[in-house]
Amino acid sequence: MSYKRHQLWLRFMQNFFGSKWFSYPLLFRARIALYRKSFNMGDSSVIENNVWIYCTHGNQGCISMGQRVLLARNVQIDYTGEVEIEDDVWFSEGASVHSHQHTVTRDRLSRGAATLKTTKVVFRAGCWIGSRAIILPQVNEIGEGAIVAAGAVVTKNVPAFSIVAGNPAKIIRMIDDRHQDSSEV
Amino acid sequence: MSYKRHQLWLRFMQNFFGSKWFSYPLLFRARIALYRKSFNMGDSSVIENNVWIYCTHGNQGCISMGQRVLLARNVQIDYTGEVEIEDDVWFSEGASVHSHQHTVTRDRLSRGAATLKTTKVVFRAGCWIGSRAIILPQVNEIGEGAIVAAGAVVTKNVPAFSIVAGNPAKIIRMIDDRHQDSSEV
Amino acid sequence: MSYKRHQLWLRFMQNFFGSKWFSYPLLFRARIALYRKSFNMGDSSVIENNVWIYCTHGNQGCISMGQRVLLARNVQIDYTGEVEIEDDVWFSEGASVHSHQHTVTRDRLSRGAATLKTTKVVFRAGCWIGSRAIILPQVNEIGEGAIVAAGAVVTKNVPAFSIVAGNPAKIIRMIDDRHQDSSEV
Repeated sequence: MSYKRHQLWLRFMQNFFGSKWFSYPLLFRARIALYRKSFNMGDSSVIENNVWIYCTHGNQGCISMGQRVLLARNVQIDYTGEVEIEDDVWFSEGASVHSHQHTVTRDRLSRGAATLKTTKVVFRAGCWIGSRAIILPQVNEIGEGAIVAAGAVVTKNVPAFSIVAGNPAKIIRMIDDRHQDSSEV
Repeated sequence: MSYKRHQLWLRFMQNFFGSKWFSYPLLFRARIALYRKSFNMGDSSVIENNVWIYCTHGNQGCISMGQRVLLARNVQIDYTGEVEIEDDVWFSEGASVHSHQHTVTRDRLSRGAATLKTTKVVFRAGCWIGSRAIILPQVNEIGEGAIVAAGAVVTKNVPAFSIVAGNPAKIIRMIDDRHQDSSEV
Repeated sequence: MSYKRHQLWLRFMQNFFGSKWFSYPLLFRARIALYRKSFNMGDSSVIENNVWIYCTHGNQGCISMGQRVLLARNVQIDYTGEVEIEDDVWFSEGASVHSHQHTVTRDRLSRGAATLKTTKVVFRAGCWIGSRAIILPQVNEIGEGAIVAAGAVVTKNVPAFSIVAGNPAKIIRMIDDRHQDSSEV
């Protein structure tokens, strides 16, 4: 299948099987099977409705996902660049990931496709991206077991086992071995 | 009706009657009547399209709403815990409320259902939640007549007649008796 | 066509042609043609799915858009007041614009329609509004070539060729003639 036809298929598949109507018991399984096959996902993943995984600007990006990944409803993942998601990563409702940016100058308007710059981002095992958080393209790694709080706008790498929050996101504390309550949803 | 069947009905009802197509004069009334009955709402409420009221993790949460409540489009309310909304509360477009969290430790991935922790949040009479604001689960009360600005991420209780904004949300001023312009939508 | 009928038509048009199903080659053109005609847009504009352009409170607002304007998916523009968008302005996914507010006092609940206050906002040529940014009603101008970062909540005017970010948005740097990477998507 050509690149263009493949993109049309992915768009159709997500429009149709990503709809709310495929959130019922049997249909839900069909959705997950199709997403898994289309996007190189491991076993036991969960994909809620209206998840949108896409690449743009005609670029041929790259995405891979491990096992037991959760993509909650309204999650958006741009793999125009490269996105790698390890095992047990959770994306809460409405989180979004970006993997491309554009060169900006005063004469931006006269630019062509050459100004596209793709990036790579890795989500290490067990990290958790909160509701409506935004992962910007200059981020290259979200560390193992890290938590990105709901509504955070992440502009740089997140260390393993840290909790980041705010806009722009900053480390608010580290996760230790004691029990703690998450406020990140 | 069993808990599970009831959840399926609520999902169906919201998918179907919550759609944009039920925003036309007569159909709009049908939507409101069904939401009101399903979610224990008072009179004269307004429910726009794509409102999503849900509980998760198999929990049997609790929600009640007073009179003249506005739920604008894309509002999301998680009542896995307990949500109480008094009279004349407005939720602007895209606001979201969370009432459960999870215990977080380094071994999060080995956790079971026991780590779910539900919370209770009360929206006092006349408070107003701005567009795309996020109310996190550690919040227990939004005070009477308070205003949460658009895009705010609320991490603690909001006093009566205060205006909070930002991520995380902080009090920016109090509402007094003089006329003021809201910038909160 | 009366005001009310016109509003019903606009709502229908956007529900139907704004859907994801009109994102395929030929249908995409039909969507763009209808939006352009309905909302006074210039040539060569691009309108992705689920764009919502509306006025509320029964007000008869005003909107005009220049050429080569991009409205990415989920963009929301409230023209209850007045919205002017010049040439080459880009709105990334999920950006929202507000042009009305309400007078706020302690007795808000007893207010009538008189408390509506409309505003005017101008987007100067070549400015770029990042993903999920919120432009609040007290903003009157986004300057020429300015960039509003993803997730920013803009509460005041943005100078030409500046980059603003955060909640509330602040200037983080100016755009100069050297090549720079945007982190704003």
